[in-house]
Amino acid sequence: MELRFIRGGVCAVDGVLAAGCREGKYGVGLIINRGSTAAAVFTSNRVRAEPVKLTERVIADGSISAIVANSGNANCFTGREGMDDARRMARKVAESLSMDESEVAVASTGVIGRRMPIDKIEFLIQSAAAQLENSEAASGALAEAIMTTDTFPKEVAVEFELETGEKARIGAVAKGSGMIAPNMATMLSFITTDVDASSSELTEALRVAVDESFNMLIVDGDESTNDMVIISSTRTSGRIDSNFREALVAVCRELARMMARDGEGATKSFQVDVVNAGTHEDAKMAARAIAGSSLVKTAIFGADPNWGRIVAAAGYSGAEFDPEEISVTLESDSESVVIVDHGDILAFEGTEELETAERVMTSKEIRIIVDLAAGDESATAYGCDLTYDYVRINAEYTT
Amino acid sequence: MELRFIRGGVCAVDGVLAAGCREGKYGVGLIINRGSTAAAVFTSNRVRAEPVKLTERVIADGSISAIVANSGNANCFTGREGMDDARRMARKVAESLSMDESEVAVASTGVIGRRMPIDKIEFLIQSAAAQLENSEAASGALAEAIMTTDTFPKEVAVEFELETGEKARIGAVAKGSGMIAPNMATMLSFITTDVDASSSELTEALRVAVDESFNMLIVDGDESTNDMVIISSTRTSGRIDSNFREALVAVCRELARMMARDGEGATKSFQVDVVNAGTHEDAKMAARAIAGSSLVKTAIFGADPNWGRIVAAAGYSGAEFDPEEISVTLESDSESVVIVDHGDILAFEGTEELETAERVMTSKEIRIIVDLAAGDESATAYGCDLTYDYVRINAEYTT
Repeated sequence: MELRFIRGGVCAVDGVLAAGCREGKYGVGLIINRGSTAAAVFTSNRVRAEPVKLTERVIADGSISAIVANSGNANCFTGREGMDDARRMARKVAESLSMDESEVAVASTGVIGRRMPIDKIEFLIQSAAAQLENSEAASGALAEAIMTTDTFPKEVAVEFELETGEKARIGAVAKGSGMIAPNMATMLSFITTDVDASSSELTEALRVAVDESFNMLIVDGDESTNDMVIISSTRTSGRIDSNFREALVAVCRELARMMARDGEGATKSFQVDVVNAGTHEDAKMAARAIAGSSLVKTAIFGADPNWGRIVAAAGYSGAEFDPEEISVTLESDSESVVIVDHGDILAFEGTEELETAERVMTSKEIRIIVDLAAGDESATAYGCDLTYDYVRINAEYTT
Repeated sequence: MELRFIRGGVCAVDGVLAAGCREGKYGVGLIINRGSTAAAVFTSNRVRAEPVKLTERVIADGSISAIVANSGNANCFTGREGMDDARRMARKVAESLSMDESEVAVASTGVIGRRMPIDKIEFLIQSAAAQLENSEAASGALAEAIMTTDTFPKEVAVEFELETGEKARIGAVAKGSGMIAPNMATMLSFITTDVDASSSELTEALRVAVDESFNMLIVDGDESTNDMVIISSTRTSGRIDSNFREALVAVCRELARMMARDGEGATKSFQVDVVNAGTHEDAKMAARAIAGSSLVKTAIFGADPNWGRIVAAAGYSGAEFDPEEISVTLESDSESVVIVDHGDILAFEGTEELETAERVMTSKEIRIIVDLAAGDESATAYGCDLTYDYVRINAEYTT
């Protein structure tokens, strides 16, 4: 299937309106998709923010008309007042746009455990509601409004053909950065499409896509209380099929890669491809362990081709393999070098392999390929380096 | 039971000889305890260093006469030559001290994947063998010789009475610092005692002690390929009993606390006591998740009483609890403050609780008590802050 990356984010889908407003550390983004079919995946953290609890109820009937998301305050661990605040956000949207508040999904991201500055958020909702448009600029403003420690807005849109030949689109925005672990911690993503599908069909497709993308992204291993991914459809194109499912995985993976690039304090991002694992679960465990290892992450920051840490992380991941059969390859955009070949170290001091490996490790985007030689399953995880700035950002976050 | 902390490390036990020599980044430590009963616990990493494989065989008969440990090179992922080098270390000890090489346990710590500088190590073994003594200085030299990125040597010794009234002793040295995760990554600990026990009795007591101490210690979440804890007994005191088991847990916990204080780049250490969990497993999962959270660790570095991160880590740990019933207390040596009480946040802006919490967070050793209100099981984990220096040390380690 051919996938064409296009501009426009969530507004790449006809009929979807978006807007975003920001004032100081608070921002509000709006997506309007009246009467759309919808599905969502939420954080698996036992501690769940109030908007997560509310939106789960809103989306239970498989339909939404709007999404409102604020940055600056997570509205988590804020008790009954927090639920009131989440409801007030939905109500403000409903009032401003003449819809039922039970059709408004709510998302929040930011500091945990502080009460929402609800008057300010309501004011921003009203401002955003006055600026709704189906335009590239509107989706861009939305993407910027939901940023917290993100350093750039994250949008993707694709156009492709369904098996019937009908043209279809998927558009998406996301916010990522810190506290991102397997099981998508502190990330929000809102996806739109025109593909015709029921809520349960969307749910199934979304779960698979999230599992292969956001759930394989590790910034610091912490999992947040606020994550959600929502997909909503205008149902104006053809029926859901495997082309759509493939496109959805590609969109989510692209967002995950962007989030890895924008991990808190990150200077480099990397991708771990575990191949020839005995089971898909083994491939996932090994890829995640390597992408999540503090020692691998600091080695990448230090441009050190420390295959020992890579192999050791695979070793404690729980995946089955024979250390004497493992191979490790490092790749940049322009070079590729095998540093461990079936358990033999090729990149030792004085070799050309080590020289190449050191050069590869200085590039901004690195691919680590680990061949477990134990089967034919594979998985990919996304990560970023662990840097002085990660420490600085998180040591100073609430001050 | 009264436990008296005494000096002397492994040499606190009569009849045990020790020595340590260091040259540049390489060190060798020796412990001689001829014909002692012994037991060990090894890394659970699938990738195991050659000395781990060798020592597992040496100790299989429940007896050893000597332990040789080197720092500077982990002898891991070094293939057949690595096993030859590990054997050469055992042989050198056996030749120098007229014992059978099958009675010599070998341990290594340091860089992974580089061949051992075996001539230098053999020279250091010979030097150490000429300096063996039963003295405080000898145990101290051993503790220093096995250091890698450790900033201080780690020794503990205790004297206590068995239930029969007989006096008994336990002595220990350890090396810790980086790459320490649950399941005791890159840590070595050698423990001596005079308590009379079979190898299987020692194994059982050691497993319990390790589980409550080293396995609850988290520096960076990575688990090494080289860890081992060996206990050996002269069997010159009374029979093993519950007083011994209790003393062994206390010794191992004290070593774990020392390792937390000396985590790579750490400026502060902390202890997480999870109380009133539904099951012991829940208590352990929650304590480890909190102690291992990068966000909690950076908050401690930044002296930020960020209970949100503590509660969020408990939330993704897998432990069962009701977020609205959780309580969190912060303690220093001199102060204690409840910051979350049955789900109610007490330490918000402008409160005395927040002021106290901020003061507590500036102390060098912090205790975090998390009450899950779900049962009566408890567990303790040990951790340290995540700092600029952790990043620096590990970004530059092999260069």
